[in-house]
Amino acid sequence: MEKVRKMERVAALTKILADRPQHLFSLSYFSELFGFAKSTICEDITTIKETMGHFGLGTVETVAGAAGGVRFVPTVPADEADKLLHELACRLAEPDRIIPGGFLYMSDLLFTPHLMVKAGEIFMERLAHLSPDYILTVETKGIPLAFMVARAFDLPLITVRRGSRVTEGSSVSINYVTGSSKRIQTMSLPKRALPAGARVLVIDDFMKAGGTAKGMVDLAQEVGAEVTGIGVLVATAEPEHKLVEDYLALLILHDIDEHTKVTDIRPVLTTG
Amino acid sequence: MEKVRKMERVAALTKILADRPQHLFSLSYFSELFGFAKSTICEDITTIKETMGHFGLGTVETVAGAAGGVRFVPTVPADEADKLLHELACRLAEPDRIIPGGFLYMSDLLFTPHLMVKAGEIFMERLAHLSPDYILTVETKGIPLAFMVARAFDLPLITVRRGSRVTEGSSVSINYVTGSSKRIQTMSLPKRALPAGARVLVIDDFMKAGGTAKGMVDLAQEVGAEVTGIGVLVATAEPEHKLVEDYLALLILHDIDEHTKVTDIRPVLTTG
Repeated sequence: MEKVRKMERVAALTKILADRPQHLFSLSYFSELFGFAKSTICEDITTIKETMGHFGLGTVETVAGAAGGVRFVPTVPADEADKLLHELACRLAEPDRIIPGGFLYMSDLLFTPHLMVKAGEIFMERLAHLSPDYILTVETKGIPLAFMVARAFDLPLITVRRGSRVTEGSSVSINYVTGSSKRIQTMSLPKRALPAGARVLVIDDFMKAGGTAKGMVDLAQEVGAEVTGIGVLVATAEPEHKLVEDYLALLILHDIDEHTKVTDIRPVLTTG
Repeated sequence: MEKVRKMERVAALTKILADRPQHLFSLSYFSELFGFAKSTICEDITTIKETMGHFGLGTVETVAGAAGGVRFVPTVPADEADKLLHELACRLAEPDRIIPGGFLYMSDLLFTPHLMVKAGEIFMERLAHLSPDYILTVETKGIPLAFMVARAFDLPLITVRRGSRVTEGSSVSINYVTGSSKRIQTMSLPKRALPAGARVLVIDDFMKAGGTAKGMVDLAQEVGAEVTGIGVLVATAEPEHKLVEDYLALLILHDIDEHTKVTDIRPVLTTG
């Protein structure tokens, strides 16, 4: 391939790096792609690193050594994260979202790609210190969010099924009691999905008493994996004591008044 | 904000555009962000357009007029698409994926972000002429793929549930007969999810006889929407005549031999 100008290399490098967050690309890969020495690619990377930092678009990490390379880690600036959470809170408080029984219709937002891409990056940023190997969720509505968290980490997502499926081979099942309605339910995981010793981050769209999250913790334990953290998009303020202890919620649902149609839901902000 | 050099503008512009495929950004937005005239931003866009084209990373479309702007449309070069489909076929043919009953374990691949991001872009590219307003799928395993198709189109995903859910408000339900096992099943859609007149693209992970896809077509019709196309990652060669007529499959499953552990699955390639 003919040699390309620095401007073009920077544009192409940015696209390739940002397309696959957290993935380690070797400098040799880019060196061959562009027909330039690694030292030149290194200079291009420095330019990108500075620019991404300047605009709060992400960080570029360089890993030295033979197995080294470069990776892009998305960041969401605090004000942008807060803006997204404000927007979500505002939309979730729309009166016509209240469903008889005191539920909140959230599916349209949970299945809107650009909202979940950003939410996924926020979770990744705030929970990166847990160094998970897998993201774990339970069907159905939390899947897009959990998948976008998985994308931001460049990790596989494992989806727990309700009941047991013949098309997934032998499974481990547990019974769990939903914390709020006290019903006994079953959830299952294909035995091959999660290796023993794996570090797992649980992601879900909603938490009330925490029974479902507790079920996922137990299920992970059953196969010898360890849940190192739990993230939910919305948690209810009540009950204050959930069945799981540590969790990160981006929004807190304080109250739904079916009569006045007023929903009190507030973002958990990082800035003052 | 202080003015930034062209190199930095190009890097930041590339990241912002590529981050949200198909979304129309106004030139004023970038003009304010960088503190440069629109004519300068236009020149930057031209540089990015040429580079993306040169490396087969995507196209940049400029829309003229007051409501105009610029959008990024991802492309997957034919050889890269074929490489991905070859890889998927190769991995799906691994002997230990065969589950008693003649099923194929696909969940690990279906829940791996970078694979589904690319598959989503391939579907978008091949089905863009259908101009959908919504992507439609049914829980559970097809959700990540369908969500990545939705992301590539910048459209919302609607997920049909099996059974009816109290937390989603009033729903439209239909009974359908699975084409292969001839069981009667129910699927439902919240009434508010899909407006009448909407153009819908159905995406699923697997199609055998097409009963599930037919169910989604019927359900969409029930609310006055129109299914304009169907895309599935894997379709079986048999039965040749499915319950739906037109569909795009990226891989064809010809045979699973439980005894010899040989799976015959082939990519549908675009190049000779």
